[in-house]
Amino acid sequence: MARRDAAAAAARVLRRLGPLAAEPPTRGTPRARYESGDRAVSSCRRSGWVPGLQRPLCGPRTDAGAYEGQRGASRACQVQSQSRAFGSAATATNIQRNPAYSELSSDDVSYFKSVLGETGVVLDADRVAVANVDWMGKYRGASQLLLLPKSTAEVSKILSYCNTRRLAVVPQGGNTGLVGGSVPVYDEVIVGLTGMDKIISFDNVNGILTCEAGCVLENLSTFVENEGFIMPLDLGAKGSCHIGGNVSTNAGGLRFIRYGSLHGNVLGLEVVLADGTILDMLTTLRKDNTGYDLKHLFIGSEGSLGIVTKVSVLTPAKLPSTNVAFLSCNDYTSCQKLLLAARRSLGEILSAFEFMDHHCIDLATSHLEGVQNPLPASPHKFYVLIETTGSDESYDKTKLEAFLLRSMEDGLVADGVIAQDISQASNFWRIREGISEASVKVGAVYKYDLSIPVEKLYDIVEEMRCRLGDSAEVLGYGHLGDGNLHLNILSNKYDDNTLAKIEPFVYEWTSAQRGSISAEHGLGLMKAEKIHYSKSPEAVQLMASIKKLLDPNSILNPYKLPSPSSSVPCNSLKPAAYQSCLMLR
Amino acid sequence: MARRDAAAAAARVLRRLGPLAAEPPTRGTPRARYESGDRAVSSCRRSGWVPGLQRPLCGPRTDAGAYEGQRGASRACQVQSQSRAFGSAATATNIQRNPAYSELSSDDVSYFKSVLGETGVVLDADRVAVANVDWMGKYRGASQLLLLPKSTAEVSKILSYCNTRRLAVVPQGGNTGLVGGSVPVYDEVIVGLTGMDKIISFDNVNGILTCEAGCVLENLSTFVENEGFIMPLDLGAKGSCHIGGNVSTNAGGLRFIRYGSLHGNVLGLEVVLADGTILDMLTTLRKDNTGYDLKHLFIGSEGSLGIVTKVSVLTPAKLPSTNVAFLSCNDYTSCQKLLLAARRSLGEILSAFEFMDHHCIDLATSHLEGVQNPLPASPHKFYVLIETTGSDESYDKTKLEAFLLRSMEDGLVADGVIAQDISQASNFWRIREGISEASVKVGAVYKYDLSIPVEKLYDIVEEMRCRLGDSAEVLGYGHLGDGNLHLNILSNKYDDNTLAKIEPFVYEWTSAQRGSISAEHGLGLMKAEKIHYSKSPEAVQLMASIKKLLDPNSILNPYKLPSPSSSVPCNSLKPAAYQSCLMLR
Repeated sequence: MARRDAAAAAARVLRRLGPLAAEPPTRGTPRARYESGDRAVSSCRRSGWVPGLQRPLCGPRTDAGAYEGQRGASRACQVQSQSRAFGSAATATNIQRNPAYSELSSDDVSYFKSVLGETGVVLDADRVAVANVDWMGKYRGASQLLLLPKSTAEVSKILSYCNTRRLAVVPQGGNTGLVGGSVPVYDEVIVGLTGMDKIISFDNVNGILTCEAGCVLENLSTFVENEGFIMPLDLGAKGSCHIGGNVSTNAGGLRFIRYGSLHGNVLGLEVVLADGTILDMLTTLRKDNTGYDLKHLFIGSEGSLGIVTKVSVLTPAKLPSTNVAFLSCNDYTSCQKLLLAARRSLGEILSAFEFMDHHCIDLATSHLEGVQNPLPASPHKFYVLIETTGSDESYDKTKLEAFLLRSMEDGLVADGVIAQDISQASNFWRIREGISEASVKVGAVYKYDLSIPVEKLYDIVEEMRCRLGDSAEVLGYGHLGDGNLHLNILSNKYDDNTLAKIEPFVYEWTSAQRGSISAEHGLGLMKAEKIHYSKSPEAVQLMASIKKLLDPNSILNPYKLPSPSSSVPCNSLKPAAYQSCLMLR
Repeated sequence: MARRDAAAAAARVLRRLGPLAAEPPTRGTPRARYESGDRAVSSCRRSGWVPGLQRPLCGPRTDAGAYEGQRGASRACQVQSQSRAFGSAATATNIQRNPAYSELSSDDVSYFKSVLGETGVVLDADRVAVANVDWMGKYRGASQLLLLPKSTAEVSKILSYCNTRRLAVVPQGGNTGLVGGSVPVYDEVIVGLTGMDKIISFDNVNGILTCEAGCVLENLSTFVENEGFIMPLDLGAKGSCHIGGNVSTNAGGLRFIRYGSLHGNVLGLEVVLADGTILDMLTTLRKDNTGYDLKHLFIGSEGSLGIVTKVSVLTPAKLPSTNVAFLSCNDYTSCQKLLLAARRSLGEILSAFEFMDHHCIDLATSHLEGVQNPLPASPHKFYVLIETTGSDESYDKTKLEAFLLRSMEDGLVADGVIAQDISQASNFWRIREGISEASVKVGAVYKYDLSIPVEKLYDIVEEMRCRLGDSAEVLGYGHLGDGNLHLNILSNKYDDNTLAKIEPFVYEWTSAQRGSISAEHGLGLMKAEKIHYSKSPEAVQLMASIKKLLDPNSILNPYKLPSPSSSVPCNSLKPAAYQSCLMLR
């Protein structure tokens, strides 16, 4: 873009008051429907509706394995097949039930009732069925028993008993995960933390919240916002997800670029180990250099080392000013440069930097009602959403406008618009959020959540486009500020040919860039056996040793931790080893 | 203060151009001599002078244990006494040499020469002597051998050999620690990382630095600042300390309130385990949720689980505007409220919030040349130093001034002054930094580094003052924004009576508040046996199990990790259990 054109375009940006003003504002705050990357949790989910409950359970063993109460332990949890497949074709895998685990008996149920009372022991088939399936309906277990402890002591008694009896356990928070980490695979006892939802304390000088693990994130957000603080993380699933689950999966989310990971924000944890030991690490101190900082072992270990029962977390002060801009760029290099410029110029007020390619915009505007591109139609290849959060409305807005003008003059931004009110900001976010929702309306969608160095991040999208040709549509979007790409591949239907073109290439390519095959979703059941693409054999071996140390009977969340020799290590692959599709084109 | 008086005082603040302008500015940037709380490293240290080198070695075994080279292994490292005492009366302890460790032989030396060459194997008594003593001259070992590897592979070979031979090892970075963690206790082989000082890469889009562990922090700061970024940590010892040592001790420092701990800023590590295994966790990704995040085990484990050889760290963008204010408050409650108001009003630009009681100011101005209180003499009890860092000089200053005016009108601030230039800012910091330096001029000083919930933080200072009466002077200062108190107790000389009034009370009191007996300095040799005051028995037991798992022969940094049963657990003590001195007064 010539400089004089840029100046004219820049002037237009400042005049533009938002082409989406005709659309009615969405209810609630603009952040109320923000998603965490690759997932969108609809408002029906927020109100308590669970997808699995609306559909018949169709997992391979849900009928055969029905718990028959007092009719005897021998018939409980009968397993018709010792091998099963999961999820879509894209994630199919086979796992054997571990015969070392005991099967649930009526004595077990009696014991649990003696500890938890009748209300804490759920045998009702419908209620247990809901807990057996993840919210996408993709992963289904066949547990017969849901336990609902109300205290750490009760969790301790449950685990101590299960450890002695070799009963496998799956901890469950809000059950909003995307990788099958929070539902049983076979007949594991489900320990739900819903009943542990008390706020224990709040230090309103330092913004330190201490609460039980079953607190819903949105409830915590509301609580601390009333005190003038915000939670350091925000997810699309916040209306359902639990803080204990957030910690256990090291949830990323929308505030990551500003406030960083939970490893930096969680101050303390209380965890119950597999043998029932209560590990009190519930400090509320910002600094504590006395010995190993053990809590980090449990942040992101997906419930495989212990059950998180209490959390203390540092909450940042709530800042009153939020601004959102929606911009277009002519190429991916400009997006990168814009990110660098935004870090430099917006500095301390930058709170989001999201990018989408034009395929995403086309998809969202075509398939979602009321979603429009706020920028005039033109052949822009990339779009960027920038959000700032600060303490001075007019200053922050002036700063963002000045940054935008400079970026246009420098040719980094082709066109852009700044939201003039909450409604417009919400509409801009709706485009970004709507991509995932629009994707599933097309047909089959192969979804990948990757961390890749920013300079290489879009290469995999182009490689995939080249490999798949006309057989599929490839979309790239995500949290550019965090180096987190969401790669969605759309096709009419799942088929093995398409899958063979995608996998294992996508994992091998990511590994060769020293990327991560799971940026923010965890491994769960979906990617347990693929850990070697992102971690060295020595690291996986040490993880297995730590698992053995903390949970020698492996009762906690089984089948979701890789064995040290379960896969071929791929970290040694180098990009040059690939026959780049793009290079041949 | 009445409102009208406050308004007049506020007007004075804005007029005041800094009473210290007559003093010549210090060389370099005002941050060049900032200290990390309780330590000050003088410029002679920065220029390469090492205290231990200037003095005769007077440790108990430095002559007896002299290595005799080719005259035979049997005479090497002879140990005259199997028990020794360390440090000042305040930290005296007795430790037996572990007879399970081998003694150094000439064959060992030959092997190390075959791996490292002649230059990497230091036997010269003077050079080894320097590495045997910490920079305070408080802790002295009697090692005969300093190894200087130049690569990870060499570190691996050293540890593999030492593990097989049961030779104990102490890893050593810049040797600037305060708790005796980086020097030998007996005849441990010293592995110095000085030779591993290469910057490996810098991603100037995301600000991600990857380097070897022996890089000096100040060199890294200079490097990334030239690229438009800053290191997320800054210490008084930055001219000497190594990034690997910073990671291994989880160094806090001056930017903690803004950028948080190294657990949030370190992205990846390469570590050599005790058996020589190279653990590659050297990701440069902001997000990676594939398995347990093992690097956190090594952050703050003080070299007892492995030797950090490479580090990747997230560096924030460098912001051009820094402002410093020096304020007085009438009481500690006002300091707390001011902190809350600063978090709220200064929000994203707040970068330091340090506090000092008036005893500190009196001490610094009495004992340090050229140090003056920039505020008119008046009976203020507390002083606060606030620093902001942002991207807009005039806006940030206006914001700080407005905040100061409001705080005066609200009665939180009694008086105050904003630095008008770098020289004044440096002078304000000099007061805060000078406290530690001034303390040692008085005579004996008992120093404690405590994390305590902010609302209770000053109580221990008053309790101590009450307990000690006229026999000692008690000073309280520190990083209020981080809840980190530096408690200094000044006396004419060390004596058992004074010590008995201080310890174990100070640890018990801190424990009862669920505080930490080491906020940012680590345990080292000084506080290894006191871990129970801050960690539960279950946590200490798990630490010991992890140590056993990773270093079964316990060759890494011995005598500095507590045994699970080494001390009486004190976490169960409650404040009410104390006979408060203040309550009786």
